[in-house]
Amino acid sequence: MNFEQELDKRIIEIEKVLMDYLPKQEGYYKTVIEAMSYSILAGGKRIRPMLMLESFRLFGGKDTVLLNPFLAAIEMIHTYSLVHDDLPAMDNDEYRRGRKTTHIVYGEAMAILAGDGLLTYAFETAAGAYDFIDDSSDDALSMYKKISSAIRILANKSGIHGMIGGQVIDIESEGQLATKDRINTMYKLKTAGLIEASMMIGASLAGASEKELAIIESIAGDIGLAFQIRDDILDVTSSDEVLGKPVNSDEKNDKSTYMAIMNLEDAAKEVAYVTDRARKAYRSLSYRNDFLEALIVKLMNREK
Amino acid sequence: MNFEQELDKRIIEIEKVLMDYLPKQEGYYKTVIEAMSYSILAGGKRIRPMLMLESFRLFGGKDTVLLNPFLAAIEMIHTYSLVHDDLPAMDNDEYRRGRKTTHIVYGEAMAILAGDGLLTYAFETAAGAYDFIDDSSDDALSMYKKISSAIRILANKSGIHGMIGGQVIDIESEGQLATKDRINTMYKLKTAGLIEASMMIGASLAGASEKELAIIESIAGDIGLAFQIRDDILDVTSSDEVLGKPVNSDEKNDKSTYMAIMNLEDAAKEVAYVTDRARKAYRSLSYRNDFLEALIVKLMNREK
Repeated sequence: MNFEQELDKRIIEIEKVLMDYLPKQEGYYKTVIEAMSYSILAGGKRIRPMLMLESFRLFGGKDTVLLNPFLAAIEMIHTYSLVHDDLPAMDNDEYRRGRKTTHIVYGEAMAILAGDGLLTYAFETAAGAYDFIDDSSDDALSMYKKISSAIRILANKSGIHGMIGGQVIDIESEGQLATKDRINTMYKLKTAGLIEASMMIGASLAGASEKELAIIESIAGDIGLAFQIRDDILDVTSSDEVLGKPVNSDEKNDKSTYMAIMNLEDAAKEVAYVTDRARKAYRSLSYRNDFLEALIVKLMNREK
Repeated sequence: MNFEQELDKRIIEIEKVLMDYLPKQEGYYKTVIEAMSYSILAGGKRIRPMLMLESFRLFGGKDTVLLNPFLAAIEMIHTYSLVHDDLPAMDNDEYRRGRKTTHIVYGEAMAILAGDGLLTYAFETAAGAYDFIDDSSDDALSMYKKISSAIRILANKSGIHGMIGGQVIDIESEGQLATKDRINTMYKLKTAGLIEASMMIGASLAGASEKELAIIESIAGDIGLAFQIRDDILDVTSSDEVLGKPVNSDEKNDKSTYMAIMNLEDAAKEVAYVTDRARKAYRSLSYRNDFLEALIVKLMNREK
C-alpha cells in the first residue's frame, strides 16, 4: 500500500462529499454561507471524516449513503470550532494554514454567526440522513435507531462534556500549573472528543456492537491524547519550517501542557504507553483495516 | 379564564422542565455550565416553550414526556442567540432584563463558549427524547419518526435558513435603506424562525397532519412578523419606563425597520392585516385552545 497515495485518494473522496453538502449561496443572507464555505474550503487533512469513513469500513460498512451526511457534519463541527477559536476574544489568530482567518476576512460578527451557522447546519445535515429511510421497509426501525444514535454521539462529544468542555479547561488553565489529571482531561475532551465521535459514528453506522463501540471509543481517546502530547513535544523540539507554525508558542502563551509538568523523555514514554494501549485494544477486535492502522500510527507519532 | 394567572402557571410549569434539563455544574469545565445556567435563569416570559406546549395541547397532546426535552431545547437555542447577540462584536449590550449580560460576568471567551455550549446541548437534549422509546412497542417506529422530524425542524428554523439568516440580514442592513421585502424576510427568519419551530414541534409531536403543520407554520410566521412590527412601532411611540429599555434605539443604531420605510399609520395597518390573516388561518383548524388564542393576540398586539 502506498500510504500517501491512498491518503490523497480519500481526501478527494471526502471533499467531494463536503461539496455536496455545503449549502447554496443564495438569499439575502448569502454572506454567512460564503463565510461558512470559506472556512470549510480552507483545507486541512480531513482527519475526522477520514477516521469516520475508515472505522465504517473496518466494521464492514459498504454503502455510505447514511454515512455521508455525518462525514460532512463532523467536518462542519471541527471547522466551526476553529472559526470561533480564532476569534480575537479567544486565540486571536489572523492566519490559519497560510490563509486569513474568517473574522479577518468577514469581520468578527460574521465569523461568530458563521461558526453558529456551521454548528447548526451540522445537525441539520446529519438529521438529513433520515431522508434515506423507506418507512415501509423491514429495516426502517433499525435505520432510525442507527441515525439517532449517531446524532446523539455527535452532540455529546462536541458539547460541554466533550470538545467545548476541553476548550473551557484550556482557557482556564492558562498561566496555571495544572495537574496531569487536569491536562489529560483537557486533551481527552478538546482533542479526542471529535475523534471519538468520528470513529464511533463510523463504527456504529456499520453495525458495530456496544462492546466494539466501547473499544473504538478507547482507541480514539488514545489517538487524541497521543496526538496532543506529540503536539506539546514538537512545540519544543521542532522548527517553524517543519511545523509550519511558530514553535515555543505554548510557553509564550502560558499554556498548560505536558512540557510544563515533565521532561521530554517522560513525555515520549507517555506517548509510547498510550500508543501501546491503543494497539492492544485494536488487536482485540476481529476486524482489520490496513489503511486505518497506518493512519492511526501516523497520527500518534506525528512529526509535524 | 384569568389570563395573567394562567400565564404565570405555565411559566412555573416550563421553568420546572428547564431546571430538570439543565446540565449539572461539575467537572473541570464547570464554569461554562455555570455561565449557561446564568443565561437560562436570567428569566424572560418563556414565550417559545409556552407556544410549543400550547400548540401541543391544541392538537390534543396530553403526555408531555417526548415534548419536555424540546421545551428545554428551544429555550436553550433562544438563550444562546441572546448570549451571542449581546457580545461586543454584535450588539455590545451590558445589560439584559436588568441583569449583567453573560460576557460582562464571565468574559467574552466564556460567553462565546457558553453560547456554543447551549446550542450543542439543545440538540443533545432534544435527541435525549429517543430514550423514552420502547423499541419493542408497536408505536416505536412512529415515535422515532416524530422525534426525528422535530429535530429537523429545530435545526432548520434556528440555522442559516432561519434565525441565523435573519441575524445576518439584520447586521448587513444597518445604515442601508432596505426594501420591505428584505425587512419582511429578516423578520420572518430572525424573529419568526424560532416561533415557527416552537409551534410546529408542539403540533407535530401531538400528531398534527402535514396540512395542519403548514397552517401552524403560517400562523407562527405571522405572529413573529406582527410582534416585530409592533416592536418597531413601540420604539418610536412608547417610553423608556413602559418598554423597560431605551426607546428610539433603532434610529440611533441605524437599524432597517418598518419605521424607516413607512409611517405609523401604515405600519399599524400592516399589523392589522397580518393579525387578520393569522386569525383566519387559525379559524380554519378544527381545534381550539383558548389560552393559546389569548396568548397569540397578546403577542401580536403587544404594548411593551
